[in-house]
Amino acid sequence: MRIDVLTLFPRMFEGPLTESILGKAIEKELLNVNVMNFRDFSDNKHQNVDDYPYGGGAGMLLKVQPIDGAMKQITRETPETTKRVILLDPAGKKFDQKMAEEFSKEEHLVFICGHYEGYDERIRSVVTDEVSLGDYVLTGGELGAMVMIDATVRLLPDVLGNEQSAITDSHSTGLLEHPQYTRPADYNGMEVPEVLRNGNHKLIAEWQLKESLRRTYQRRPEMLDQVEMTKEMLKLLAEVKQEESLKNNS
Amino acid sequence: MRIDVLTLFPRMFEGPLTESILGKAIEKELLNVNVMNFRDFSDNKHQNVDDYPYGGGAGMLLKVQPIDGAMKQITRETPETTKRVILLDPAGKKFDQKMAEEFSKEEHLVFICGHYEGYDERIRSVVTDEVSLGDYVLTGGELGAMVMIDATVRLLPDVLGNEQSAITDSHSTGLLEHPQYTRPADYNGMEVPEVLRNGNHKLIAEWQLKESLRRTYQRRPEMLDQVEMTKEMLKLLAEVKQEESLKNNS
Repeated sequence: MRIDVLTLFPRMFEGPLTESILGKAIEKELLNVNVMNFRDFSDNKHQNVDDYPYGGGAGMLLKVQPIDGAMKQITRETPETTKRVILLDPAGKKFDQKMAEEFSKEEHLVFICGHYEGYDERIRSVVTDEVSLGDYVLTGGELGAMVMIDATVRLLPDVLGNEQSAITDSHSTGLLEHPQYTRPADYNGMEVPEVLRNGNHKLIAEWQLKESLRRTYQRRPEMLDQVEMTKEMLKLLAEVKQEESLKNNS
Repeated sequence: MRIDVLTLFPRMFEGPLTESILGKAIEKELLNVNVMNFRDFSDNKHQNVDDYPYGGGAGMLLKVQPIDGAMKQITRETPETTKRVILLDPAGKKFDQKMAEEFSKEEHLVFICGHYEGYDERIRSVVTDEVSLGDYVLTGGELGAMVMIDATVRLLPDVLGNEQSAITDSHSTGLLEHPQYTRPADYNGMEVPEVLRNGNHKLIAEWQLKESLRRTYQRRPEMLDQVEMTKEMLKLLAEVKQEESLKNNS
């Protein structure tokens, strides 16, 4: 997979791209990431990238020309790839796991990051997806691009080792994860539940399923509507509801 | 404000912390950020930070001791601050703008970032908030912590310059932003709408409001239910709905 990032702050990507999963994927040559400063493509002698908005209003807007210039350079370098061009935009579609899965099947992603300013509307003409990280305001698109790249790249074949990919992730099973414990059995008086230490696999599996249901019921009850419940799950969920209602009334 | 970050990948923070808004806030001494590797606080001679889960299962869990050790060091350094301790956790409460506003009023934030592994449940005993960035799976909490720090720090007094903070942000007005344009008036045949170039402020304001309503109606119709509509807004929204239904039928 090739990823291009268009940004005014290429140095922001240095740490995140060399450390951790991304660094490993690049090392293994599963991934080629190219961070470009689109200021280098400004045809203006002062290398301006922004200007005042038509119709007045506070703030500056990113001009279409430098970004279009950078996109043309990418097309010259990779004329034959099919490109998914993602504009980081608070008014875009909200990023989620399904989108990460879609992105992970592409051969070439381009992320366009604004910073402080808005975009000239015509920038959208070179874009295939307008995406927002969530309902919060950030100073730029750079961190959003890093998050989307991380969520996407970890889904590429051979990027995660077995020991990592085998972990049951919250959001991939439909239930939140049950509490987990490792050694020591007692840490400053906080003990690991007895059932996890007795080696009875049937009881352990039941405890884990019940505590998954409990955590989901407590924190994200709307997720339960999406899960296909077995008879055992329904019984455990009824127990959880009764236990929690007793707790709340005591 | 003081921010501590507990991570196994401190170098990931280098670019994001020196560039852009965070770097400026640190330079102006509005912010003091301290990134610690909690591996340094392991009391194990191999400096292990993880171990196998009780009850079996794939994957490793972060042990409670190294993180508890790092927290004790922070308490020694700042005995008198009130700490908000945030665990980056896919099963946590979803981060949003309201939470960023809450965080921005605190004197001391601590972010705990896991990586690949799950957490020993007892780590939660030192935590005040369990927070998730969104419904997607990341390889670690580091990028999530950076996003939350960025969203929080830009709300601190004197961090954003006037020209930046005055920008109408999507998600802060209740409507998505209208399209915006800057020079040139014609870019490869793509023209700026006539109304924005004729200088009639009343017509410009009406166009901007109508296009905000249109974009919100097209992309995030559920947001419209939350907005208190003036008579003018209701009239413009009715026009938008009629225009869009004609477009879709043609």
